[in-house]
Amino acid sequence: MYAITIPEPGGPEALVWDEVADPVAGEGEVLVDVVAGAVNRADILQRQGFYDPPPGASPYPGLECSGRIAALGPGVSGWAVGDEVCALLGGGGYAEKVAVPAGQLLPVPKGLDVTRAAALPEVVCTVWSNVFMVAHLRPGETLLVHGGSSGIGTMAIQLAKAVGAKVAVTAGTRAKLDRCAELGADILINYREQDFVEEIKKATDGAGADVILDNMGAKYLDRNIQALAVNGRLAIIGMQGGVKGELNIAALLNKRAAISATSLRARPTSEKTAIVAAVREHVWPLLDAGHVRPVVDREVPMSDAAAAHRVVEESGHIGKVLLVTP
Amino acid sequence: MYAITIPEPGGPEALVWDEVADPVAGEGEVLVDVVAGAVNRADILQRQGFYDPPPGASPYPGLECSGRIAALGPGVSGWAVGDEVCALLGGGGYAEKVAVPAGQLLPVPKGLDVTRAAALPEVVCTVWSNVFMVAHLRPGETLLVHGGSSGIGTMAIQLAKAVGAKVAVTAGTRAKLDRCAELGADILINYREQDFVEEIKKATDGAGADVILDNMGAKYLDRNIQALAVNGRLAIIGMQGGVKGELNIAALLNKRAAISATSLRARPTSEKTAIVAAVREHVWPLLDAGHVRPVVDREVPMSDAAAAHRVVEESGHIGKVLLVTP
Repeated sequence: MYAITIPEPGGPEALVWDEVADPVAGEGEVLVDVVAGAVNRADILQRQGFYDPPPGASPYPGLECSGRIAALGPGVSGWAVGDEVCALLGGGGYAEKVAVPAGQLLPVPKGLDVTRAAALPEVVCTVWSNVFMVAHLRPGETLLVHGGSSGIGTMAIQLAKAVGAKVAVTAGTRAKLDRCAELGADILINYREQDFVEEIKKATDGAGADVILDNMGAKYLDRNIQALAVNGRLAIIGMQGGVKGELNIAALLNKRAAISATSLRARPTSEKTAIVAAVREHVWPLLDAGHVRPVVDREVPMSDAAAAHRVVEESGHIGKVLLVTP
Repeated sequence: MYAITIPEPGGPEALVWDEVADPVAGEGEVLVDVVAGAVNRADILQRQGFYDPPPGASPYPGLECSGRIAALGPGVSGWAVGDEVCALLGGGGYAEKVAVPAGQLLPVPKGLDVTRAAALPEVVCTVWSNVFMVAHLRPGETLLVHGGSSGIGTMAIQLAKAVGAKVAVTAGTRAKLDRCAELGADILINYREQDFVEEIKKATDGAGADVILDNMGAKYLDRNIQALAVNGRLAIIGMQGGVKGELNIAALLNKRAAISATSLRARPTSEKTAIVAAVREHVWPLLDAGHVRPVVDREVPMSDAAAAHRVVEESGHIGKVLLVTP
């Protein structure tokens, strides 16, 4: 098969479409003929040499894919060769074939093209595990999503609206905020022109956000805590604004607030399986019914993954950038 | 009645036993003839002028008491005049009488002297709400308790052992650590002589603590995160080591860990009532059966509250210091 390899870490040009050995489905795994993968920021860090694959994972980048089951490894039940699926991966999604633990598979939702299903696993699992399983967003509460037009952001808006929450987003352009509004966002904040703490307070009668989904880390830490409501929960899933920041514990304590920080990739298969099962139970019915849809910015040939990385690095996209196999 | 008043903030001598107006039980409240109150660190901050009572609370210090019901306000059911009780208070426990919302009352556990029951409400509600309701300590997990010989610490050890957890404690003297061991603590760390990060790792095969109950705040923030296990939860309930500290978000994220910070006093009656109800359901059977007991350092006449404050400020105590009415 062909896969995107990284002979030497570096810029987008470090991604090389090359012939490599086929993977084999081990015990409890299935082999998927990949139709599409999708770009995540972790792939860019891996390309740059800052994020090695966890032990046992494929050496190729790619944390999610869609496709068709080509073979079942020993001990797999509930799936058949030919099934259209999408999957959460520890790596290897930038390839024509990938082996994946069966517990990380999800069926392609009804009425959705198999290609577009590649946009789902990372964003749905990340949003569900953080906003709902950890931060317990409840109907009537307010969710603030930083980077509302990202793949994660566009899914967070839709899922939060689906459970009856109010949604605020930050983004850097009018076009991005407009797209967030189309998806249901109630409060639109242009972070280049407005102070999000002030805006979220204004929009919530001074209360603040009950849950914040944050991809900025250190840069927003203090302001995120200022923006939280009493009993608020800050869920950090990215550190695009740095890894170390001053925490005002008194401010946190006065609000009886909490901070969590997670990533998906490093979790053991057992935890990924539990998240995928929860997502299938709670989110898949919304996708099957068409109430929630993946937002896809564009489809790029997988062999030209470098072009896709350039788009994401320039933040020129809205939703997910997909990589389609030949 | 008489109560401890604070005419001017200051040292222990600022506490003045003086005659004041009797409180009245309002709607949903009961009037308690106080047998004993207990000292909390928040009382010392209030005495120093750093911690004003929340709106609507008694102006006198004291966040808990035991005693007998003297009168029922309108709309109270389930309690009778003469019942022996202990209560979580928003203030006013350093007094001969106090009015308290009925939802913050608990019966004196079977076989326990009414005086000693004054040692229970704050520690039981704080430990239960933080270690169990927020941090979800589970059987087989490891809890690290800083200040293991404090009132909070001695209760945290007992409750964690009662649910089948392993318990590590820090304290500053051999005598304090010995008392923690008698209460069931498995791992004893003298923070004056040992590094608690190193010791907790050594005692858990490198895994770290699943839950940490912390009263130090900023001073321990970074080391607490180092000491956490994967999926660990840090529950901050005090800031004796400062309010602002550098947070290593990458370290938190790599462990998929969480930080919460809470206090009891500022919570609305509805939240206090929910905590007291949970405590009555889960902890009171353990107290009634004698499996868990309050640890009382000494009983001091309430009129000499200054002496009690001096003991707590010098950290010379193990467990709670009680204030007994004449």
